[in-house]
Amino acid sequence: MEFSSKLLEKAVYEVSQLPGIGKRTALRLVLHLLKQPESQTDHLVSALASLRKDIKLCTTCYSISDTGICHICADTSRLDSLVCVVEDIRDVMAIEATGQYRGVYHVLGGKISPMDGIGPQDLHIASLVERVKSGAIEELIFALSASMEGDTTNFYIYKQLEDMPIKTSTIARGIGVNDELEYADEITLGRSILNRVPFENALKKP
Amino acid sequence: MEFSSKLLEKAVYEVSQLPGIGKRTALRLVLHLLKQPESQTDHLVSALASLRKDIKLCTTCYSISDTGICHICADTSRLDSLVCVVEDIRDVMAIEATGQYRGVYHVLGGKISPMDGIGPQDLHIASLVERVKSGAIEELIFALSASMEGDTTNFYIYKQLEDMPIKTSTIARGIGVNDELEYADEITLGRSILNRVPFENALKKP
Ligand SMILES: [Zn+2]
Ligand SMILES: [Zn+2]
Repeated sequence: MEFSSKLLEKAVYEVSQLPGIGKRTALRLVLHLLKQPESQTDHLVSALASLRKDIKLCTTCYSISDTGICHICADTSRLDSLVCVVEDIRDVMAIEATGQYRGVYHVLGGKISPMDGIGPQDLHIASLVERVKSGAIEELIFALSASMEGDTTNFYIYKQLEDMPIKTSTIARGIGVNDELEYADEITLGRSILNRVPFENALKKP
Repeated sequence: MEFSSKLLEKAVYEVSQLPGIGKRTALRLVLHLLKQPESQTDHLVSALASLRKDIKLCTTCYSISDTGICHICADTSRLDSLVCVVEDIRDVMAIEATGQYRGVYHVLGGKISPMDGIGPQDLHIASLVERVKSGAIEELIFALSASMEGDTTNFYIYKQLEDMPIKTSTIARGIGVNDELEYADEITLGRSILNRVPFENALKKP
């Protein structure tokens, strides 16, 4: 792509550094901003700048929070003996949206991935181990994605906690409640048969 | 979507104002920035801010340029009697990439679209008429998209120029050079039959 303007080229380059955004999309987005009132760019720029500068992580669960302790950790009606271990805040939002979970979280900030140069020390794992050592936790629920990296991370944490008297579990994987068997992938279907539950459990309302 | 942080919510909202970017994608992009070094956000923010603040349009063709006259208008080897009328700079870039065009451009900045509240006065049409009146132009090539808005815009400009001694043309529309007839849409195929060219022309190298 040949640009007639260095300013345009630089902006397109920076936008195209975002994941899943190619040069063409970046150019489309940047030209859109140029057609809108200058205030739209101002708002975008200042929201991104202050997010990056002022963002805080909850000192307990490492979720994103504007305050030192997030509203979930601060909520005394939640079970702080039950901790769900997730990759990032999107997982927290997804689980919260179900309205089914009354425990708290621990946000790792990613998965162990040697290919991407991400090791245990890059994630909030040591703080999770400390949290468990402090003694208030009875059960950890691993809710990382079912990938090699997810499994590696689960196992690494599991080994760190081996001598500690807590339960560990993983979220159930299987066919979605409204999915048709014929469209399910084989691994999911296989797992959902291996991990079948007593019929009486399935009768319970979610 | 329920956010645990107002800063995060604000950033996601502003990013999701971009066309084709929903809330989920915006959240993914923003979380990506949070995982990268702060310098990446700084570069993005300053590139967008200075683009919006310092961007200039060429005073002749209204293409984006860092200088008062763009490098195409300034190039004395180009035919300034031949002007290709386009919607935005992406069209200029696409035509330049062919290496086939030796004329200059006029960038309208959009198409007439009453539905979107865009009238002739919102586009660089008056300046095109002035350019034609100045007498140096022999031919205008309309290269707007073949849509109702494109046709309306072409026709509006055509009427403005009715009494002036210039040629007007539109780019040829038809089946792509390497496309199969069976996959072409009917309107394109129909047009390509109506606008058939003498066989000797088709023998010419592009
Ligand atoms: Zn927290
Ligand atoms: Zn120019």
